[in-house]
Amino acid sequence: MSTTPDAHSLVALLRNASAATLRNVLLQWSLQDVANALVQLPVADQATVLRTLPTRAASAVFEYLSTSAQRVLVPAMAPDDLAALLNDMAPDDRTLFLSELPAHATHELLTLLSNEERARAEKLLSYPPESVGRLMTPDYIAIRADWTVQDVLDHIRAHGQDSETLNVLYVIDHRGVLIDDIRVREVLLVPVTTRVAGLMNRRFAALRATDDQRSAVQLFRREDRTALPVIDQEGVLIGIVTVDDVLDAAQEMATRDLQRFGGSEALGEPYMAISMTRMIRKRGGWLVVLFLGEMLTATAMGFFEEEIARAVVLALFVPLIISSGGNSGSQASTLVIRALALGEVTLRDWWKVARRELVSGLALGALLGTIGFLRIAGWSLFTNLYGPHWFLVAVTVGVTLVGVVLWGALVGSMLPFGLRRLGFDPATSSAPFVATLVDVTGLVIYFSVGVVILRGTLL
Amino acid sequence: MSTTPDAHSLVALLRNASAATLRNVLLQWSLQDVANALVQLPVADQATVLRTLPTRAASAVFEYLSTSAQRVLVPAMAPDDLAALLNDMAPDDRTLFLSELPAHATHELLTLLSNEERARAEKLLSYPPESVGRLMTPDYIAIRADWTVQDVLDHIRAHGQDSETLNVLYVIDHRGVLIDDIRVREVLLVPVTTRVAGLMNRRFAALRATDDQRSAVQLFRREDRTALPVIDQEGVLIGIVTVDDVLDAAQEMATRDLQRFGGSEALGEPYMAISMTRMIRKRGGWLVVLFLGEMLTATAMGFFEEEIARAVVLALFVPLIISSGGNSGSQASTLVIRALALGEVTLRDWWKVARRELVSGLALGALLGTIGFLRIAGWSLFTNLYGPHWFLVAVTVGVTLVGVVLWGALVGSMLPFGLRRLGFDPATSSAPFVATLVDVTGLVIYFSVGVVILRGTLL
Repeated sequence: MSTTPDAHSLVALLRNASAATLRNVLLQWSLQDVANALVQLPVADQATVLRTLPTRAASAVFEYLSTSAQRVLVPAMAPDDLAALLNDMAPDDRTLFLSELPAHATHELLTLLSNEERARAEKLLSYPPESVGRLMTPDYIAIRADWTVQDVLDHIRAHGQDSETLNVLYVIDHRGVLIDDIRVREVLLVPVTTRVAGLMNRRFAALRATDDQRSAVQLFRREDRTALPVIDQEGVLIGIVTVDDVLDAAQEMATRDLQRFGGSEALGEPYMAISMTRMIRKRGGWLVVLFLGEMLTATAMGFFEEEIARAVVLALFVPLIISSGGNSGSQASTLVIRALALGEVTLRDWWKVARRELVSGLALGALLGTIGFLRIAGWSLFTNLYGPHWFLVAVTVGVTLVGVVLWGALVGSMLPFGLRRLGFDPATSSAPFVATLVDVTGLVIYFSVGVVILRGTLL
Repeated sequence: MSTTPDAHSLVALLRNASAATLRNVLLQWSLQDVANALVQLPVADQATVLRTLPTRAASAVFEYLSTSAQRVLVPAMAPDDLAALLNDMAPDDRTLFLSELPAHATHELLTLLSNEERARAEKLLSYPPESVGRLMTPDYIAIRADWTVQDVLDHIRAHGQDSETLNVLYVIDHRGVLIDDIRVREVLLVPVTTRVAGLMNRRFAALRATDDQRSAVQLFRREDRTALPVIDQEGVLIGIVTVDDVLDAAQEMATRDLQRFGGSEALGEPYMAISMTRMIRKRGGWLVVLFLGEMLTATAMGFFEEEIARAVVLALFVPLIISSGGNSGSQASTLVIRALALGEVTLRDWWKVARRELVSGLALGALLGTIGFLRIAGWSLFTNLYGPHWFLVAVTVGVTLVGVVLWGALVGSMLPFGLRRLGFDPATSSAPFVATLVDVTGLVIYFSVGVVILRGTLL
């Protein structure tokens, strides 16, 4: 029986074929195709399909599912099936799955594991979120320096089945201390009688389980490796991290950074998959905080109410001025957040960054200030919109723009440093957050400049 | 002679040691260490060091340098050294290097290549920027279905030296058509007498050279591969893309997206490395465009100048209201930009997204509107800041907030779809861009609501 690997065929098989037929057909599909078809079925059918597959295949299909799809599926499965599947999952994928469940559910599932697997799972879950430990797998190939390449190939053939990758091999000494990593290509390019020691250069890059996942991404980029070893304090090899997990982590960090920068909590789930209430809660929190902060603008404006009443023309430029400060701050903030995330800039560079922003802020402020001045002056040649004192109004707006754009650049660039220094994520310095900070001060700058320049004429 | 691999040792060696000694010491360092030390030297010394190394090592060190470091180094090198180095570079790294030079420099360097290498380089450069072709290398291991595993291992040992990766092997037929890809692990886990055909499942994921790099990132994440094949229209294998280049591309795309979202042109260089004039130009362009757009707020405000003069209290809430619309739009925009970039949402989903944003926008608007209403009402119990008609003012602000936050969510979420539809990058829909669009309309909404509610009292 031949079928195209899609949800339609899968439903037809479930309805009409025997369990044995279903199993045989599915084993001819790729695990990826099975996973893609599976998620389109009712949950009860999903559990049936997984039960039909051999445990190893079922675990692999389960690993391909998104965390939310996994979470939905678990309650529909028989405890025995679930136990078999969990015991057979790749340790790193299992960590990701367990860590995203509510604590009581994680605890319950851990009891389904064998003693050995539970110990491994609990160890991996004990590392902080967003640390390298959460991406780590203890399944790798360790070899010894005195082996020949033939010994290595024999060892791989005998014990490589469970290893997460065979692309990199790890040379350890008798205490388990990592002394080198060797890409399998080096082994494949030399005669089989070569000793491992002859391939070694005793230079390797390694991660710590407690390292931040961001630093893992940078190390992978620098080293061009498909897997990196993880060692403990004593240099003992405790696991490896493979590039596929790092690519996922890098993409998720980029998503989180962008969403935070947009002024919302990171969704943590695909946009179309997240429930409306959760999305509203994640967006509402920051929106309320920003709103409360922005209320200070009403207070600041109230402070200058008399000036506004006497010179309504000043009010006309309020949105223009505060938005210019916000835009300048938003630019500076993204540049610094990203430079910090990529390690191009460190905390100690704050002073160099401040100097760069001082120069750019002044240049950009002068540019906008000039345009603003010319706009008001130009309009005033043809209309009387800005009154008889248009020249002084134009000067006020022009000077304010220089100050506000400069201020925006400084606040926007220094805020991420401040947040990092205080132990927060610099990406919390979102565009709306910077804009809110700059809005209030921008208004104060504007009306103060106005009071000085327009005293005796408009004010 | 033993040294620590850093710039200090390198300078000492250059000054005091013979070329032969320098060469021997450097060959004991990792290429990465040489590259790191090299960039801290004067350019002339950098060229000397590269000349001292064997060509293969020099090319590898050169590949490790950043594009800007490479660009600086080229003019300092003798044409013969440069030619040797360029001919020996990995084709994908060479494409990246050549593509970031000015056109005339690229052309000049191409003439230094051998006929064969020039043809390869020109072919790769002919693919569009940000396409898969630009990441591709034609150096891979192709095998045949009727070979045994022993034949494969022998072939690798004889011809694998230049291959970009040995982690994945490609099975082609007599016309060069790709019929399967096999991970080297599968070859290593079976007896050497096994036929390749016995390992094949004829299922593989492949890229096209003209595919967008974003789709390559998604395919790598989905397939968990360290390399993916690139095929032409007829299915003929023309190259491979390795995960290290994809990880770099993913990081660079994330940087570009975040910088654009922050309202500036993507810098294209590290923050600390870019010249001040280039940075100011990249930021100034958008800042001016946004400023010109934001000038419409002054026009809109001017339109309601009389109302403001009569009810100055309305002016006090202008910053609060437009920033709330901007924040709501900024949130919606990031969520949609990222969902589009990750392929979670496609153009056809615009209507589903609009519905989600309609609901969230209303809910979030009601939330902020209530807080705004209570704030004004609460204040008015104790002060006379908002005058005798404070209740109507509070209603005006509350109702406006619902409208503006909803409007922000709709504009912010639909703009990326509109931009993609028109062939622009959705990430152009930056926080400042959305805020600018929402500001003008937000003002019109505010004053229109005010005119309706306050007619006969304040207005």
